[in-house]
Amino acid sequence: MKLFGLAVSNYYNTVKLALLEKRLDFEEVAVAPAQTPEILEHSPMGKIPYFQHQGQYICESQAILFYLEVYQPTPRLYPTSAARAALAQQIHQFIDLYVDAPARRLLGMAFFGQPHDPEMIKAVDQELKHNMSALNSIISVSPFIAGDQLSHADLAAFTTFGLVQAIMEQTGGSDPLASIPGIGVYMEMMSQRPSVQRVQADQAAAMKQLFGGNSG
Amino acid sequence: MKLFGLAVSNYYNTVKLALLEKRLDFEEVAVAPAQTPEILEHSPMGKIPYFQHQGQYICESQAILFYLEVYQPTPRLYPTSAARAALAQQIHQFIDLYVDAPARRLLGMAFFGQPHDPEMIKAVDQELKHNMSALNSIISVSPFIAGDQLSHADLAAFTTFGLVQAIMEQTGGSDPLASIPGIGVYMEMMSQRPSVQRVQADQAAAMKQLFGGNSG
Repeated sequence: MKLFGLAVSNYYNTVKLALLEKRLDFEEVAVAPAQTPEILEHSPMGKIPYFQHQGQYICESQAILFYLEVYQPTPRLYPTSAARAALAQQIHQFIDLYVDAPARRLLGMAFFGQPHDPEMIKAVDQELKHNMSALNSIISVSPFIAGDQLSHADLAAFTTFGLVQAIMEQTGGSDPLASIPGIGVYMEMMSQRPSVQRVQADQAAAMKQLFGGNSG
Repeated sequence: MKLFGLAVSNYYNTVKLALLEKRLDFEEVAVAPAQTPEILEHSPMGKIPYFQHQGQYICESQAILFYLEVYQPTPRLYPTSAARAALAQQIHQFIDLYVDAPARRLLGMAFFGQPHDPEMIKAVDQELKHNMSALNSIISVSPFIAGDQLSHADLAAFTTFGLVQAIMEQTGGSDPLASIPGIGVYMEMMSQRPSVQRVQADQAAAMKQLFGGNSG
């Protein structure tokens, strides 16, 4: 199994967490998103992550996650009851569509030197407040985000919440996690998992490589 | 089981097709998307479709589809092999994110009297050409869109292709399906299914009710 992409990406890290939780052997290949023939051949939208196993290439993190679940069902990341399965999927959709997507509009301002646009920052800030409240109304942190078992929704939540919080901090917006009471305890619990510690260490190293080590 | 939403919506119809294919008993409740307390209580982003069964409300069509699959596994709409399951999920993501989403920006111009913006129409037209070519490179119409069995990707493809084609026709753009050779035969095959015929008849009646019957 080969995972292609960058260790700074929340989508990449969501898939990487699934590979680690399922104790699968995999190789990481550092590839930046690009519209080059080499990338497009295996990821037709030029995006990362993408994944290769047994001659098949798969892109879209939700498709890779589902592949891993069917290939290696234990430990389960897709709940077996219809009610829990639907809740985890619903939470994952909310995170991708209503948390990641709006915050991503500020990625250039937060990390790549694009001039700050106060109106856009304010608009995203308000959209995130609204959407995080909506998310809060469907989650059930008990102790995991879709119930008593770890699921794919936790992997997306942890990696995306971290990114979105960093984006809003860098752009002077408000803390998007403030709309979810008790989420600090959840993030702390997640950060104790060996899989998460590995991903966070690799992400920090990749950030340092990308932006230089001059923060100290 | 209750399905809430509008029979003019491709997302609503994707879920309705799954209910019909699985021969489940369900009731349809006509509800428009809205930011009212009544809707937000059950669909926290105010969107349709949403779904209710055994006291649980679920929104996001991909979450409802997965609920139905776990609750009633036959006939299967999620392939059982990892490779096919991933392909169907990848195609479904492409359709939602890269086909529906860009075309949806022209929905107001196509159907709700919003003044045509030639630059935006051109931009969407080009984006769709690019994205439909990308989709074409991953699909395998043999005879279904992810292989030899009907899958959830077919339900999303049929309903969304129909919408996107109508949007581009109404706004004077080019036929987005032209990037997928042989797709006409596929659409014709799909339109022979009793589930599809029911959904299309209901959609036509809903369109007539929404826009009036003055087209003849």
